[in-house]
Amino acid sequence: MATGEFELIDNYFTHRLPERDDVIIGIGDDGAVLDVPAGFQLVVVTDTLVENVHFDRQTSARALGHKAVAVNLSDLAAMGAEPTWISLALTLPHSDDEWLNSFSHGLREICDYFNCQLVGGDTTRGPLTITVTAHGVVPKGKAIQRRGAKPGDWLYVSHSLGDAGLALASQKHQVNISSEHFRQVSERLHFPTPRVALGQALRDVASSAIDISDGLLADLGHILRASQVGAVISLEEIPLSLAMTESVSQEQALRYALTSGDDYELCFTVSEDQRGVFDTKLATLGCKPVCIGRITGQAEKIELKLAGEPWQFELPQTGYQHFREPLEAS
Amino acid sequence: MATGEFELIDNYFTHRLPERDDVIIGIGDDGAVLDVPAGFQLVVVTDTLVENVHFDRQTSARALGHKAVAVNLSDLAAMGAEPTWISLALTLPHSDDEWLNSFSHGLREICDYFNCQLVGGDTTRGPLTITVTAHGVVPKGKAIQRRGAKPGDWLYVSHSLGDAGLALASQKHQVNISSEHFRQVSERLHFPTPRVALGQALRDVASSAIDISDGLLADLGHILRASQVGAVISLEEIPLSLAMTESVSQEQALRYALTSGDDYELCFTVSEDQRGVFDTKLATLGCKPVCIGRITGQAEKIELKLAGEPWQFELPQTGYQHFREPLEAS
Repeated sequence: MATGEFELIDNYFTHRLPERDDVIIGIGDDGAVLDVPAGFQLVVVTDTLVENVHFDRQTSARALGHKAVAVNLSDLAAMGAEPTWISLALTLPHSDDEWLNSFSHGLREICDYFNCQLVGGDTTRGPLTITVTAHGVVPKGKAIQRRGAKPGDWLYVSHSLGDAGLALASQKHQVNISSEHFRQVSERLHFPTPRVALGQALRDVASSAIDISDGLLADLGHILRASQVGAVISLEEIPLSLAMTESVSQEQALRYALTSGDDYELCFTVSEDQRGVFDTKLATLGCKPVCIGRITGQAEKIELKLAGEPWQFELPQTGYQHFREPLEAS
Repeated sequence: MATGEFELIDNYFTHRLPERDDVIIGIGDDGAVLDVPAGFQLVVVTDTLVENVHFDRQTSARALGHKAVAVNLSDLAAMGAEPTWISLALTLPHSDDEWLNSFSHGLREICDYFNCQLVGGDTTRGPLTITVTAHGVVPKGKAIQRRGAKPGDWLYVSHSLGDAGLALASQKHQVNISSEHFRQVSERLHFPTPRVALGQALRDVASSAIDISDGLLADLGHILRASQVGAVISLEEIPLSLAMTESVSQEQALRYALTSGDDYELCFTVSEDQRGVFDTKLATLGCKPVCIGRITGQAEKIELKLAGEPWQFELPQTGYQHFREPLEAS
């Protein structure tokens, strides 16, 4: 059953991967050698998933393979970058053929879909930990930052929010939902869709962008801090899935949408000037971001309004911070 | 005592780092944006250190900060690349100011020395695991590969071998050495020096190169397999430190040099034609690699000779493979 480190990598990860022309040396040497096209800049992002912190033992290996890549491509999308290559650092308690087959299958599926090639990594023994470093390219000077939002800009999110949080709450028996709704929101928790095409379409159009991994309020907060602006959100505009609205009250739905993590949707701002260009670009893209509010001049202040009236609610904490979370039992 | 994820990163890693002109966006956005200079290719390497597998609880945090970067820069050196940027994925069981101060100090020292900038990463809660992805650049087409060795090429190593293995054996009370020798070899185990300048000097000169992380025989084996050649090694030429020769028998010293890991020296081949160029380059470099043998036509065969006579010895295993190692008690 035990497999050597090198055969491991060979067996599961080196075949049936997309082969890009810009990969000069891939897996199998001390490092990968890669061509960044002239006129483009390199974008690098890193995200780690740890067992019992980001997922539990029941999570399928295929979902982990997908998600470890997806959360990184979501960061690339928020920068407006086109994904190109990933490195995988995989720490496993023991060699498990079935798990590795399923994990590499999930990883391959999303890499294939986004034409992103695995070019290297490291496989080590230890508690299950998955770190992916993803690389992308963006035309010189066109990366979207957090700090460009201006008062008067429109505030958008790419898709419905809170489903992953609802799935997690249901999994922990904190809320009771139908099995069909559970299936739908679990799909969003385990197989998030990074908004890669949208991110690239936002270059030259969005004044700022971030991906929502820690909840809308926390991540919008990063844009507001970096840009030194505020925002007013019309809560009734926040997109919610049918699974969400049919399962919980409006107040509970808004709590999930505002504060639960793992959405991996984009949150971005568009100036009044760019709004026409943006609508035209969207028409060809087949996705429908929703305008949920506007940027204000009140630095770092978020005003929540429901039907025009201020909506008060206690924030449990400002985002999902691992060091403040107790470790869950495995 | 508990520190939030974001303050953590801010406090320990974002100040007093080298600032490179080619870092357009560093830490603090969804990703880093980086300029690869025209005419250069990107080189990417990844290595993970796991507690109780690659180091034990007694290892100083400063050493870990150094080593997590050093092992990656060693891979870049083996490719002939100039280090530029690193990403750090740090998984910690709890927030510990003293540990983080010391770890970030070790990481900063080596980054400063090699003018390599930390540009991003992820800090998560979980069992202590450190993954660094290092980036470097190499003039287009000049990366050194494992597969270029040809029969007749000369075989070199960059410096004395086996000291890290001796330090580890002494730490485990498998061998008794003086405290001064222990200090010297422990320094090599915990603060390895990546041969960055040598690696770059080897471009256009070496026909193949690899860094020795799993023992000379195992890593030379990768060159032989990739190049479909063999090698003959004159064991008396293998450089050994005084700490080594004064502590153990010649046979034991050779066993450490040939099979113990963690040396992070370079092993490379130079053709007869290039030997003169190589000697000239070395004179200006202030380091003195040692020729220990020659490449042969017998694919994947390593002949060991001592004073011209074949030297037989049983290999415990072909290299340091984590999945074959039992987990040490913590």
